[in-house]
Amino acid sequence: MTIKDVAAYCGVAVSTVSRVLNNHPDVSPETRSRVLEAVDKLHYIPNNSARDLVMAPADTIGLVVRGAENPFYTPIIRTIEERCEEAGYTMVLHQIPVGADEISAGATLVRSKRLKGLIFLGGRFDYSRAEGDAIGIPFVCCTNTNQFGDLDKSVYSSVSIDDYAEGYKATKLLIDHGHTKIAVLLDSVRDHSISELRYAGYRQALVDAGIPLDEDLVLETVDFTMSAAYARTLAALEARPDITAIFAVADSMAIAAMKALHNVGFSVPGACSVVAIDGIEISQYTIPTLTTLVQPQETLGEEAFKTLLDVIEGTAPNRHVRLETSLREGETLGKARS
Amino acid sequence: MTIKDVAAYCGVAVSTVSRVLNNHPDVSPETRSRVLEAVDKLHYIPNNSARDLVMAPADTIGLVVRGAENPFYTPIIRTIEERCEEAGYTMVLHQIPVGADEISAGATLVRSKRLKGLIFLGGRFDYSRAEGDAIGIPFVCCTNTNQFGDLDKSVYSSVSIDDYAEGYKATKLLIDHGHTKIAVLLDSVRDHSISELRYAGYRQALVDAGIPLDEDLVLETVDFTMSAAYARTLAALEARPDITAIFAVADSMAIAAMKALHNVGFSVPGACSVVAIDGIEISQYTIPTLTTLVQPQETLGEEAFKTLLDVIEGTAPNRHVRLETSLREGETLGKARS
Repeated sequence: MTIKDVAAYCGVAVSTVSRVLNNHPDVSPETRSRVLEAVDKLHYIPNNSARDLVMAPADTIGLVVRGAENPFYTPIIRTIEERCEEAGYTMVLHQIPVGADEISAGATLVRSKRLKGLIFLGGRFDYSRAEGDAIGIPFVCCTNTNQFGDLDKSVYSSVSIDDYAEGYKATKLLIDHGHTKIAVLLDSVRDHSISELRYAGYRQALVDAGIPLDEDLVLETVDFTMSAAYARTLAALEARPDITAIFAVADSMAIAAMKALHNVGFSVPGACSVVAIDGIEISQYTIPTLTTLVQPQETLGEEAFKTLLDVIEGTAPNRHVRLETSLREGETLGKARS
Repeated sequence: MTIKDVAAYCGVAVSTVSRVLNNHPDVSPETRSRVLEAVDKLHYIPNNSARDLVMAPADTIGLVVRGAENPFYTPIIRTIEERCEEAGYTMVLHQIPVGADEISAGATLVRSKRLKGLIFLGGRFDYSRAEGDAIGIPFVCCTNTNQFGDLDKSVYSSVSIDDYAEGYKATKLLIDHGHTKIAVLLDSVRDHSISELRYAGYRQALVDAGIPLDEDLVLETVDFTMSAAYARTLAALEARPDITAIFAVADSMAIAAMKALHNVGFSVPGACSVVAIDGIEISQYTIPTLTTLVQPQETLGEEAFKTLLDVIEGTAPNRHVRLETSLREGETLGKARS
């Protein structure tokens, strides 16, 4: 299939097809639409590298995802990709392991591809000024506020929930159901990321309710894998069978914790309640259904892209968007056993 | 941060830094490594669009994923992206809805970006010759064999399990446990994709065991969503409480079916066994643990990329790789109730 076939099919000159494909103005609307229809119908692929070189990769956006194994990110990635497509941008996805440094990965991406902007999904919240400078193009932290870093708020954007407030809310739910032996299941209390913030909310909720912090009930897993969450919960239940509730900082960890509870014969929520934050699709189908604070995943993706586009196109300055969760009332929250 | 800062930091001329960045041969190894270290350390980003234009987007590979909501694809996408990175390629991800046509999406991608090759993840198995021609660059069908299409095997590659054989195997497992009232939960018996093939395996296993096909036990959901799988199972159990086993063509559908079984008071596997194909991480944590034929997800991604690279670089012709599943013995397979 060549440009000549398209021209023959439409009964126009090759140069006319070329003008249509190159968006020249001197083609009648009817001819233009006839040619474009034929291009589609015949599956013609313009094979003009020089033109592609100039047109194609100009509007590329990088998406750096840390810990993409988490199904929580899937709808966010899909939404960002859809919005990119609609706006005529290409999305280049770069996934990095949980332990890797997304800023240097982002800087490398910027250096090796021609990017107009970057979105960081997941990751650390402590980018330094030097790291911010290393990016050198507009960027948005999605599900990340960078509140531990010293970046000037005006040099980047962020779109996320208020992790501290939501951690507080989840813990308060358990306290309101009479729980005092509340374990928190998280990556690390000093991960400079969501675990640390949600843990701070947990602590404050305990303080406000007059419940002393019990270090044994702080279950750190070192990573976000389900296998680590499972093993850590199992060990905690053996050491401290008086636990009556678990606040997991992520749905996936909560699902692993429920499996551990089940395997040691703790009924949920009879013997132990479980509350989480995220709201991934699959946690609607766990047995029992997980009670969780649902993040607006599509909206997070949409806002991240919209914010980035505004900054790239200069229609608005960097901004920091906070979104709310909504409680999905599942079946894992009950009164504390006495 | 400019090229001058890098030069000053290293104590070399600006032109030397430039030569290193442009891979000119006339720089000593020590100077080269000193400059590259400084570039990394100072987070210097070369700001030379002309050079980027020529160098950067040349080696781009497109990945078209249909139904990316399925967590089954996550490790495959991650693996392909990692291998691309290692080989110096950029991966452009394009996700399309389950109902969309990946071939025309792929052709558009090829037309609008400069791609060296394409990987289709998921999707139809019935590409026509014209559709194959429309791609115009090397492509690999991953988890897809295109066996319903009329493409010449030499014009594309594929990497997948043998869906027919694995459907047979899953059904045979249930038959060997004494089941005869075996429901099959799938998208559609005529989806020209994995459902149709795994269903054919199911039918053949029944035939070989002398069990007549019972149309009531063929549970079509029209799509791969968990909500549809849940609703369809619920309706089937009401209409046909004599069902003693379910073969779900995907883990995610099996998890939804288990929820439906639970909600109508069917114990698993006491009242009803469940067997699936896929082996996503989360199905290790369902209660009870899902018994499933695990696809080698990382290997699927690795083989897909390796095959594409061989074809792009001309080191090997198109090939068709079949991989085996391995049985994960969970807790959802039991003897048929009598």
